[in-house]
Amino acid sequence: MKQLTVGVVGAGYWGPNLIRNFYENEQVELKYVCDLLPDKLAGIARRYPTVKTTTNYQDMLDDPALDAIVIATPVRTHFRLAQQALSANKHVLVEKPMCMSSGECQVLVDLADARRRILMVDHTFAYHGAIRRIKEVIDAGELGEILYFDSVRINLGLFQSDANVIWDLAPHDLSIMDHLLRQTPKVVHATGACHAGNGFEDIAYITLTFADNLIAHFNVSWLSPVKVRQMLIGGTKKMIAYDELTPMEKIRIYDKGISVTEPQSVQSSYVNLISYRIGDMHAPVFDLTEALKTEVAHFVDCALHGKQPMTDGRSGLRIVRILEAANASLKSGQPQEINLEQPAPTVVPQDFGIKVG
Amino acid sequence: MKQLTVGVVGAGYWGPNLIRNFYENEQVELKYVCDLLPDKLAGIARRYPTVKTTTNYQDMLDDPALDAIVIATPVRTHFRLAQQALSANKHVLVEKPMCMSSGECQVLVDLADARRRILMVDHTFAYHGAIRRIKEVIDAGELGEILYFDSVRINLGLFQSDANVIWDLAPHDLSIMDHLLRQTPKVVHATGACHAGNGFEDIAYITLTFADNLIAHFNVSWLSPVKVRQMLIGGTKKMIAYDELTPMEKIRIYDKGISVTEPQSVQSSYVNLISYRIGDMHAPVFDLTEALKTEVAHFVDCALHGKQPMTDGRSGLRIVRILEAANASLKSGQPQEINLEQPAPTVVPQDFGIKVG
Amino acid sequence: MKQLTVGVVGAGYWGPNLIRNFYENEQVELKYVCDLLPDKLAGIARRYPTVKTTTNYQDMLDDPALDAIVIATPVRTHFRLAQQALSANKHVLVEKPMCMSSGECQVLVDLADARRRILMVDHTFAYHGAIRRIKEVIDAGELGEILYFDSVRINLGLFQSDANVIWDLAPHDLSIMDHLLRQTPKVVHATGACHAGNGFEDIAYITLTFADNLIAHFNVSWLSPVKVRQMLIGGTKKMIAYDELTPMEKIRIYDKGISVTEPQSVQSSYVNLISYRIGDMHAPVFDLTEALKTEVAHFVDCALHGKQPMTDGRSGLRIVRILEAANASLKSGQPQEINLEQPAPTVVPQDFGIKVG
Amino acid sequence: MKQLTVGVVGAGYWGPNLIRNFYENEQVELKYVCDLLPDKLAGIARRYPTVKTTTNYQDMLDDPALDAIVIATPVRTHFRLAQQALSANKHVLVEKPMCMSSGECQVLVDLADARRRILMVDHTFAYHGAIRRIKEVIDAGELGEILYFDSVRINLGLFQSDANVIWDLAPHDLSIMDHLLRQTPKVVHATGACHAGNGFEDIAYITLTFADNLIAHFNVSWLSPVKVRQMLIGGTKKMIAYDELTPMEKIRIYDKGISVTEPQSVQSSYVNLISYRIGDMHAPVFDLTEALKTEVAHFVDCALHGKQPMTDGRSGLRIVRILEAANASLKSGQPQEINLEQPAPTVVPQDFGIKVG
Repeated sequence: MKQLTVGVVGAGYWGPNLIRNFYENEQVELKYVCDLLPDKLAGIARRYPTVKTTTNYQDMLDDPALDAIVIATPVRTHFRLAQQALSANKHVLVEKPMCMSSGECQVLVDLADARRRILMVDHTFAYHGAIRRIKEVIDAGELGEILYFDSVRINLGLFQSDANVIWDLAPHDLSIMDHLLRQTPKVVHATGACHAGNGFEDIAYITLTFADNLIAHFNVSWLSPVKVRQMLIGGTKKMIAYDELTPMEKIRIYDKGISVTEPQSVQSSYVNLISYRIGDMHAPVFDLTEALKTEVAHFVDCALHGKQPMTDGRSGLRIVRILEAANASLKSGQPQEINLEQPAPTVVPQDFGIKVG
Repeated sequence: MKQLTVGVVGAGYWGPNLIRNFYENEQVELKYVCDLLPDKLAGIARRYPTVKTTTNYQDMLDDPALDAIVIATPVRTHFRLAQQALSANKHVLVEKPMCMSSGECQVLVDLADARRRILMVDHTFAYHGAIRRIKEVIDAGELGEILYFDSVRINLGLFQSDANVIWDLAPHDLSIMDHLLRQTPKVVHATGACHAGNGFEDIAYITLTFADNLIAHFNVSWLSPVKVRQMLIGGTKKMIAYDELTPMEKIRIYDKGISVTEPQSVQSSYVNLISYRIGDMHAPVFDLTEALKTEVAHFVDCALHGKQPMTDGRSGLRIVRILEAANASLKSGQPQEINLEQPAPTVVPQDFGIKVG
Repeated sequence: MKQLTVGVVGAGYWGPNLIRNFYENEQVELKYVCDLLPDKLAGIARRYPTVKTTTNYQDMLDDPALDAIVIATPVRTHFRLAQQALSANKHVLVEKPMCMSSGECQVLVDLADARRRILMVDHTFAYHGAIRRIKEVIDAGELGEILYFDSVRINLGLFQSDANVIWDLAPHDLSIMDHLLRQTPKVVHATGACHAGNGFEDIAYITLTFADNLIAHFNVSWLSPVKVRQMLIGGTKKMIAYDELTPMEKIRIYDKGISVTEPQSVQSSYVNLISYRIGDMHAPVFDLTEALKTEVAHFVDCALHGKQPMTDGRSGLRIVRILEAANASLKSGQPQEINLEQPAPTVVPQDFGIKVG
Repeated sequence: MKQLTVGVVGAGYWGPNLIRNFYENEQVELKYVCDLLPDKLAGIARRYPTVKTTTNYQDMLDDPALDAIVIATPVRTHFRLAQQALSANKHVLVEKPMCMSSGECQVLVDLADARRRILMVDHTFAYHGAIRRIKEVIDAGELGEILYFDSVRINLGLFQSDANVIWDLAPHDLSIMDHLLRQTPKVVHATGACHAGNGFEDIAYITLTFADNLIAHFNVSWLSPVKVRQMLIGGTKKMIAYDELTPMEKIRIYDKGISVTEPQSVQSSYVNLISYRIGDMHAPVFDLTEALKTEVAHFVDCALHGKQPMTDGRSGLRIVRILEAANASLKSGQPQEINLEQPAPTVVPQDFGIKVG
């Protein structure tokens, strides 16, 4: 029954969730967990006595029986660890954001292609029942032409010491948008502020504009007294409001839309050029399976059968390019053009001085 | 008892609210209502039989017994009507936004100064019980240093045919911010989209940056399936969430804040440079008097006793300068610098071809 | 165009709403407003200069041109005023609750039948767009067999000095239930408490049981810190949650229900004998017309064309009989049987010593 | 460090939570888990390899090193298992409701006294941070005199096959009330309905009345389309609204109250005999520790140091007596008097034919 042998590197904040889900997948043998901190490994060993723990990443690379490596370490180490894993002919599932730069991402994408290995990015929300349900609605054309995508992900903390709020929170929302809309932005504007004196923004706003009149906006913050995770997607026919934190009716589909009409009168200044339609609201139920469980099953299926993952390296690359452009816009105060249809320039990544294993 | 004689021009969408509140103010004799549409005037005459109705604005200008003129007409007519009223030595209360351009606003400000007349702008929210309560909290220093101001005002419709959503909705939120924070932005970024083919944006996002790390952001839209009117104001000591539409606890003051600390560890990547504090929430009650009633009383008091209005012509000018810069940013795709401490260049306004009275 | 001549008696708390709606109905000539308090009449006269005001109810009874009388006075005066009006061949619309006793109600019902006059009770909610929409859903059989009706109407104040909270608030909910379900309860249980030392309960709970397993429950209170107006109606196929005070989605129709199944196992104690189904939620839009406007139009239509009102005297009688039984249960501490299919005993009402006009 | 040796019987629905919390308590050696189903035991053995699993309850009774037994089996087995445990000189923590009858409860209370063993009932909510916070507020007198307690616990499912909704859900709310108010009801009214044809009510309403004007009401249902867990506690000075399911501000303390005043006027029927005060709302933070963790630590502390538990056998007995009276009221249709200050009659419990171990 166990068909895919897997090792996980990184048992910190998110790693344990990956470890648990790989451990519980019936097609997986979770063989290794690697971390630099012996304390973390001791906890894992108690909880999963059949799993080997190691502080030496090379152990995993060297094991020919290991099929896949899951990388849940700090972002700055993703590139090196993934590069080594792919070079050792392992399939790779890597935490988001995929890498520190689009050049690194491109190198990994090319390497995975060359080695014919699966390279998948942990854009968890794409596997969430609610997002999958919303995708069905959009793909069925129910919304009509998409007019806008508006996302808010704010909370108090957790402040990161090595990245700004864009790198920390926006990958979630950018990957949801990328997954749902499958359209590529042309220009990125970002604004933000840092209040900690460390150069890392704790509040930021990103606007993406597209070839047509589609607009996407992202509000991310570590400084909000209230926790909000909401999304609005407006179409010409219907509109969706998604609230991740409400106990009920997280997805609300409004039978509301607009249509352009001729002016009714030339005299009044309150002439409507646009009419809007207000109808019922429909809140569909959706699959409540843990997103990570679905994602792990998808990774296993892709690795075993050579399928293309839904959130592959190219999607990870697209998100990192938008993040890069957003950060460039933040620093320069100017909008940044991007062209996601061209490959990113592959750069030889600098050595971050990180000792892994 | 009746001490101030008032005329109102414009009985369209908002005018009737002003008319009702001036009518009901015990110190006011509402003498005239002027509108170009006889239908509107007929309704007013039925409702307020003691008020004179006229389609001729000059009637009001020519009446030496008339002390003040209230202007509730389309924005493009504000300048001309206010200029005539001030020139005829009338006090003026003018709808928001004050004028089509900062140059016009500056001309009116200078004219009001020269004539020693009250020039007040109908920034209604400054007189709303909830906003007054929030201002007390801020002015008492309860929030500490203000870190950000974040505002959302979105709904489905009403689309305007002669202005974009920024001119329509943002004056509310900009004037609330201006009133509460009393700080002047240095740079304005705006992004947006138009889906009606008429060149007027129906969705827009504005970011204001200030001399220090204060950041303000405004989300305005006519295209949201849900109606939202919310504001977050974050300080180092406390933070406020204001929700205009919730039935209870519209103002919530969170005893939450942040403080910068030294890194705890050099090894972990999840070191907090910032610690945050989570305490109780307090929802104060506030005066439920209709904002416009309070505002009208304030205008009457200023006119009768020569006081400076809380929302004077200079505040109207500040808002219009930000609106202008936001629109310039929208059109150019580039951030715009502004200097609100310098007077605006007074321009001879073009003739909009508007026949008034 | 004016086809029905109407007089209103009572210009206190609710009367002005009736006056406004009758005044604005195009088929109505509102000829009189009667009240004992000259102050109230002065306000009416200013607002509606064409309406005659009087402190003498006999003026209305004696005017042969008056077709209908609307009674918005304290409950203890309803019977006398309505009896006089019907005896003078006027149609009658009377505030809820209809009378102080079922005997009085029965006398009025019989009198209206004998005089062939319309006798309608102001059960306003039956005319509210949301309730009308819910009634359509129920009448179409969408809920299946109705299992329960659960209502909450609680708030802080307004305390009445001459009635308990059941007489004050429960008529709303009982009339909604009566209107929606069209089933007659067999037994009434009520419990409650009085905290003011005046013998009038400020909190009460009423349970109605029916011939089958239908159960209805009503929670009414003047002592709640939060204002709640909610209703749950459960059926075998679907269930409705109605929240009058939420800004959006007041009506929510859940595709949820139950079905009885055979036990799955004899060993486990967590066997389900009942299975339940969880499906989508649907929130329909509904007519936003003011309920009282719709009700007034209905009354006028009934009076002009001899139609039976939706909330006729018999419905008013049914509600008063339930109120009587609930109060008897409160006082005795015992459940009370009722038989709404039998006429109520007509009693000669005592003289309440009320001078009207 | 391990000072108390514990065995748990019952690894079904709730047992695993108790097992986990006892396992993780540093003062506890979790030595046994007993269940009749080998499948359940196999799962426990995998998860907790150091724990002995057995299908024979006698193993635990016979082990002189075992200090305490935790009973998480179906209610009908509680008495027998607890009686055996106490007779074997074990401390006992038993699931709620404590037993099937007050007579059984009284026997256990007396037995625990005689053997000087701890007998504690798992009224979990008494240990929940929110309830502890509310208790502090009440004990400090902040609410003034308590006027009412109103509780709602409704949901769709889980239907039980061997008990009605009162036995299933009301123990939670009755034990919260008992813990917070420390007052004993005098009369119990209950109404309800059964829709499954099995004689077990799925909807029920309980009213408790007390010596003074305090009233308590409980709404429990398995048939609601929406999940609600709310509580209102009204006092003369302040009132509390508790919402277990809202993401934020679960405890809201309203500075609202009432005071009785003399009538203002003899003429008006809208005279207030009661005035009410509306002030701010305060939402305190509270300890987020898992309630069961706190409870387990309390049980361990009581067992080790001979302290009286907060939710001792007498509190379990009180709750069962109210449940019995509520069920008697349901069956008879009549209110039931109770006297919680007298001991319950100890009955020789019938043999339920349950084979344990």
